[in-house]
Amino acid sequence: MPGSPIQNPGFAYSQRCNPVSTVPTGSPLEICMPTEPTGRRPGRPRAGTPRLTGEDTAAEILDAAAELFTTEGFGSVTTRRLAEAAGIRQATMYHYFPNKKAILHRLLLATVEHSLDLARELLDGVTDGSALQATGMLRQLARQDAELLFSDTWNVASLYSTPEVNDRSFTEFHQLRAELRAAYTELGRRVLGADDPLLLEVPFHIVESVVTLRSTLTITPDDVGRLTDAVAEAAVSVLRR
Amino acid sequence: MPGSPIQNPGFAYSQRCNPVSTVPTGSPLEICMPTEPTGRRPGRPRAGTPRLTGEDTAAEILDAAAELFTTEGFGSVTTRRLAEAAGIRQATMYHYFPNKKAILHRLLLATVEHSLDLARELLDGVTDGSALQATGMLRQLARQDAELLFSDTWNVASLYSTPEVNDRSFTEFHQLRAELRAAYTELGRRVLGADDPLLLEVPFHIVESVVTLRSTLTITPDDVGRLTDAVAEAAVSVLRR
Repeated sequence: MPGSPIQNPGFAYSQRCNPVSTVPTGSPLEICMPTEPTGRRPGRPRAGTPRLTGEDTAAEILDAAAELFTTEGFGSVTTRRLAEAAGIRQATMYHYFPNKKAILHRLLLATVEHSLDLARELLDGVTDGSALQATGMLRQLARQDAELLFSDTWNVASLYSTPEVNDRSFTEFHQLRAELRAAYTELGRRVLGADDPLLLEVPFHIVESVVTLRSTLTITPDDVGRLTDAVAEAAVSVLRR
Repeated sequence: MPGSPIQNPGFAYSQRCNPVSTVPTGSPLEICMPTEPTGRRPGRPRAGTPRLTGEDTAAEILDAAAELFTTEGFGSVTTRRLAEAAGIRQATMYHYFPNKKAILHRLLLATVEHSLDLARELLDGVTDGSALQATGMLRQLARQDAELLFSDTWNVASLYSTPEVNDRSFTEFHQLRAELRAAYTELGRRVLGADDPLLLEVPFHIVESVVTLRSTLTITPDDVGRLTDAVAEAAVSVLRR
């Protein structure tokens, strides 16, 4: 509609919470919920609190970074703000990580490493080659992967689409994520008993839909189990038709 | 791993094409493909080509914008570059759209309007209230929505997560998308015969996984039909357990 003005009803949406309009049947739906993560550790030390061990300090930096990057955006967060949030000096932060990208890289690696360990184990294991066994393996992988994505306090995987992640600093992450994707397609191929490169990609992406689901809804720990089951079953169902 | 150096193997990944490493079983997979859209119109007029009708001009602007925004990022594209790509003067572009956001808004609306029309029709239609009928309706909506997302030349829905889209200029889009989401949950509720706010959100997000699927793979028109079926069935399967 060229030339038509764009309507601005005059209120702003927050990044992660959009009011839902009423559906035509007249049933009002309100699924706009605050997206406060459920697993946030209370009492994180702030600036001035002395740190004890290096491992703790690194964990604090990563936790503070995960919170700030996912709520304010990677590009908007300065290392100064990050150090403040972690309760340490900037110089201390640089002792653990060379730069902000290295912190994000470490966070991203954590979103795939655990699932990849299982994927390697499944692919390496003794196998009878049956589609049934392969289905069980694919379900197991999808379930663990979905659970990991659901359980992450800060939904770090939502940062996958951050433009900076295309930088070569993130090569290792891209390689591991690609290996995980390849494991899904290899297990899927055994389920299907045939090659179908595009269809075999679908389960992996269905599992990753957890990331956008979490961006719009608050998931409590009690919900994770059945949502994990639902998503994992949907992923597997694609190959059993 | 605090202090450990991040490895840079020394090559850059392009935004949309990551090499896939070899899975441990030894089957090499190579699913790195160029993401040239399949529906690109050849011979789009460039600067200097006279335009004939206003409708054509607006369509050219939208098409050029969809290409540039999805390949280079909304923030990186200037209105000057956009006008050049559409083959018109900047002043002409402002005759049709007040600014760059209005162009993106028009593009985003097009990603939901068609599916929303169907959703309203389904919800308004005569209904026998059976779960079977509701399942058919949900499948129909999921299928049309997935097909629309698969068929869009430039995968405009990948711009949903662009930070600027949180701006209130995009209120109408957010409202329509929320109404579409609400239609999924309402149809899902009839399938389930019960309320389960979180589970009822899953089908909508499974359908939207088409967007990330398309970001990593090239889909040809021949593939759209069966991929649409696979995704739509997976979305419906979540509620039939």
